[in-house]
Amino acid sequence: MRYSQYFIPTVKETPSDAEVISHKLMLRAGMIRKLAAGIYNYLPLGLRSIRKVEQIVREEMNRAGAIEMLMPAVQPAELWKESGRWEFYGKELLRFKDRKDAEFCMGPTHEEVITDLVRKEIRSYRQMPLNLYQIQGKFRDEIRPRFGLMRGREFIMKDAYSFDVNEAGADVSYQKMYQAYRRIFERCGLRFRAVEADTGTIGGNYSHEFMVLADSGEDAIVSCSACEYAANMEKAQTRLAASADHADPRPLEKVVTPGQKSVEEIANFLSVATTQVVKTLVLMADTEPVVALLRGDYDLNEIKLKNHLGCTELEMATDEVVFKVTGAPTGYAGPVNLPGKVKVVADLSLKGMHNFVVGANEKDAHLKNVNLERDVKVEGFVDIRNVIAGDPCPRCDSGKLEIWRGIEVGHVFKLGTKYSKALNASFLDADGKEQIIFMGCYGIGIGRTVAACIEQNHDENGIIFPIPIAPFQVIVSALSAKEDEVKEAAEKIYQDLLQAGIEVLIDDRDERPGFKFKDADLIGIPLRIVVGAKNLVDGKVELKDRKTGEVEIIPIAEALEKVKATVKAALTV
Amino acid sequence: MRYSQYFIPTVKETPSDAEVISHKLMLRAGMIRKLAAGIYNYLPLGLRSIRKVEQIVREEMNRAGAIEMLMPAVQPAELWKESGRWEFYGKELLRFKDRKDAEFCMGPTHEEVITDLVRKEIRSYRQMPLNLYQIQGKFRDEIRPRFGLMRGREFIMKDAYSFDVNEAGADVSYQKMYQAYRRIFERCGLRFRAVEADTGTIGGNYSHEFMVLADSGEDAIVSCSACEYAANMEKAQTRLAASADHADPRPLEKVVTPGQKSVEEIANFLSVATTQVVKTLVLMADTEPVVALLRGDYDLNEIKLKNHLGCTELEMATDEVVFKVTGAPTGYAGPVNLPGKVKVVADLSLKGMHNFVVGANEKDAHLKNVNLERDVKVEGFVDIRNVIAGDPCPRCDSGKLEIWRGIEVGHVFKLGTKYSKALNASFLDADGKEQIIFMGCYGIGIGRTVAACIEQNHDENGIIFPIPIAPFQVIVSALSAKEDEVKEAAEKIYQDLLQAGIEVLIDDRDERPGFKFKDADLIGIPLRIVVGAKNLVDGKVELKDRKTGEVEIIPIAEALEKVKATVKAALTV
Repeated sequence: MRYSQYFIPTVKETPSDAEVISHKLMLRAGMIRKLAAGIYNYLPLGLRSIRKVEQIVREEMNRAGAIEMLMPAVQPAELWKESGRWEFYGKELLRFKDRKDAEFCMGPTHEEVITDLVRKEIRSYRQMPLNLYQIQGKFRDEIRPRFGLMRGREFIMKDAYSFDVNEAGADVSYQKMYQAYRRIFERCGLRFRAVEADTGTIGGNYSHEFMVLADSGEDAIVSCSACEYAANMEKAQTRLAASADHADPRPLEKVVTPGQKSVEEIANFLSVATTQVVKTLVLMADTEPVVALLRGDYDLNEIKLKNHLGCTELEMATDEVVFKVTGAPTGYAGPVNLPGKVKVVADLSLKGMHNFVVGANEKDAHLKNVNLERDVKVEGFVDIRNVIAGDPCPRCDSGKLEIWRGIEVGHVFKLGTKYSKALNASFLDADGKEQIIFMGCYGIGIGRTVAACIEQNHDENGIIFPIPIAPFQVIVSALSAKEDEVKEAAEKIYQDLLQAGIEVLIDDRDERPGFKFKDADLIGIPLRIVVGAKNLVDGKVELKDRKTGEVEIIPIAEALEKVKATVKAALTV
Repeated sequence: MRYSQYFIPTVKETPSDAEVISHKLMLRAGMIRKLAAGIYNYLPLGLRSIRKVEQIVREEMNRAGAIEMLMPAVQPAELWKESGRWEFYGKELLRFKDRKDAEFCMGPTHEEVITDLVRKEIRSYRQMPLNLYQIQGKFRDEIRPRFGLMRGREFIMKDAYSFDVNEAGADVSYQKMYQAYRRIFERCGLRFRAVEADTGTIGGNYSHEFMVLADSGEDAIVSCSACEYAANMEKAQTRLAASADHADPRPLEKVVTPGQKSVEEIANFLSVATTQVVKTLVLMADTEPVVALLRGDYDLNEIKLKNHLGCTELEMATDEVVFKVTGAPTGYAGPVNLPGKVKVVADLSLKGMHNFVVGANEKDAHLKNVNLERDVKVEGFVDIRNVIAGDPCPRCDSGKLEIWRGIEVGHVFKLGTKYSKALNASFLDADGKEQIIFMGCYGIGIGRTVAACIEQNHDENGIIFPIPIAPFQVIVSALSAKEDEVKEAAEKIYQDLLQAGIEVLIDDRDERPGFKFKDADLIGIPLRIVVGAKNLVDGKVELKDRKTGEVEIIPIAEALEKVKATVKAALTV
């Protein structure tokens, strides 16, 4: 491609309305332009990277035996009413009526449509396993679209749906997708983790998230330093530490703690470690209050508590409820002698703790030497905390947990029979008996993968694309493009690389070298060949690696071979 | 691909709700499934053909220097208000509000969005010519969606938009697209015509439609037997025939014609040729009545008359208006001695006609020996009729016009400055002066191209795909797939073709030969290799051409070579 005849409207200034680096750089590199909140034009350069990701996804889905199809963006309301999600989905589901007043929505996902198709077409166990996927535009009317392609309203997604005769079959389909996803993100050239994820309100089954590692990631993910264990923060567990304190229970003692509310304040005031203070949290589980106890230095994991309680909504109680449950103003709540009847859940880490500090259920007072066995009626010891770095791995003997930041780019999910039951998608088994189909669903955010890649791979000068998803693999910059010799040599290099199947952009613009280099760095082309009069005298060009910054001045033939070899190596599966 | 592991839900019965053959066959062949009125799932086989067309379109657009990008499906109302189309577009434009009550629509076309993008990014004449295109899902809320992919609501379209500094530049861009379109439909293996088309209400400039020839086509198209001239019926012209009748005017004569109204009835009753009867049509042009005169055997072309009058709406007048204008009941209107003042437009063919028959403006009476020069005040002689087969070509000396049926699959359009003016898309010319950009737009219906191909290429057994857009190029059918030798030979042929880059489907299902052949014919795979025990003894297989029906029993190696050569030849550009 010739730069002068292409459309790459780069921008020097950092756009004021972009918060995260990928958003800023995709705007500056002329990859995207905003049309409306969360709705973007993909300019030619942006589309090229998106298509690269799509193609890798397609090849790996096909390799895993999934079959590509394409479903509509506009979906009839009836199917959503049948699945129950017309009511449940909330305002993210964009609803409208057509000219005949029939209700429709823009598809935010396609479980209903695919299950409807499959229930009409699948009759026999012999037609499964079946895995159908599509790469398609979705719409979710996010309340706060932001971060460019990271959280848009209209976005491109690969969604796959598997159909199996039983749970064992569904597990096989799930494993195939899990492996395909690993290959996809490996081939994209990304550093990522596949982590166990909570299944949320769908419940019962399991799921994995694929997280691109990046300091700017919204999600915290956890992995073991020694074994393969990895989970997102919502799901991550640790091994129960051996009882830390074998001391005998000392007598309960009330101490005055005027104005001391936080764990740090109390620990400091009483000269004890924060690990010797126990937090008492009051929450509302649906309509019932519940008390959660945690060691002072640990944070509550609401998902774990919610799963333990089996409730739908869980939120911190208001000051009013805290007072009703404990008789104390917020900051002085404690589990000893609670006035009302309320469920008390203690975090696992409290097992084996002795003589610790809690609120006294009255203003400006705490209790010392509390011991759960003696002083509190606890409903149970349950893992309800977030793990922290250094916690022992729950799987292996030697590993410690490490915490990373990540961006979710893929999610594989064992659905079970949730949608097949609701829409009555059944089949006849080998005995002629009607059975419900087992489903899985598997998503990849295509645009978000490109954005996450940029979050992970950039420097102060711009994007650093990995070769497999770079819009072009090589850029040839002709210095002083007006000089015939330079122009001819650059053109010859360009043609040679094109012939070899390399995706090459030739910067044939009549601009200063510095201007061209800035653009090349900004748009993140992995390899750059600079053709200048000075080196050309010796038959040489400059070859620069965008990532390492390494520059070599080498003969043209050598540069060509090196570029071809580097690209080939990067694309080898 | 292995048939047993693929998803091709073919259907024996003809679907009751499908009217046209392409719709029936696409349903029966398992290519599409309806989700809602005019909204379809593209099943794997259908998607493969659609992707073939997309890829041919993409390659030819790129070759012509157009640049691919991707715009959103959801568009903000503001832009449509700016262009004036929010009011004008009518109910085909599906409008809705997002969760924040902002107005949006589903894009039926993208002139507004692209012009908005370009006005923000283009500043200088040096940035043009520019041609941006996308392949994208559109939505038009048709009042009567029908014929499957032929007239759907949600559909895939390639739309391109060119931007030039002046009209001459716009003409060059237009010509490039015209040539690209010719190549696209040639490469698809379709018989088609590029015809001049009316520009409709946009006016001023010109356009061409690309029509796939098919007896079932909704549109009539016209072409010359000798030269390149071709136009759609709305636009087609003919050469003015030499005056047919040099007879002297005879005296006007009123004749009684009780109950004789139609041209045929009058001609029969008076024993004259229908070519000697002149039809008098009364129409309403916006709010004014107008009279149109045509030779008895010709039909009015309303578009031509509308363009001549420069009116917005043109329709046949009610009986009431006819009476008011002519004083006669419908069927007896004539141009002689009209009671009121009304514009009379005579078709060109009336020039040189003498002594013809018209209505007498009273019930049960006609006038004979009418001569326009003597008897009628005609506003002008204008081409306002549809051409008929055999009319002389308007371009060359020797050609006669032929009439075909066709399906519009592409449209190229010189827009001029309609949208660039409305949205103020301007640039600075070489003198630093602000100028308005000249635009063109160019569309291809991707799904409709596949449907039109099927209308053109089918027989009683199913689809007959041309190789370039067939979902698979070859099908290998293993008869008695249970016999090891047959199975092994079929597998070897399959692998050999795969290796050679041929798109091959192996029918490895445990079904009767007849059942397999029916499916192969129905889904229209161009070449079929049948592997059976009987021929295999001699190392031979059966090779069948779906189109010609030709069957050869030839050695395996020869069959493989022939298949490869045939596919290669069909794909050679």
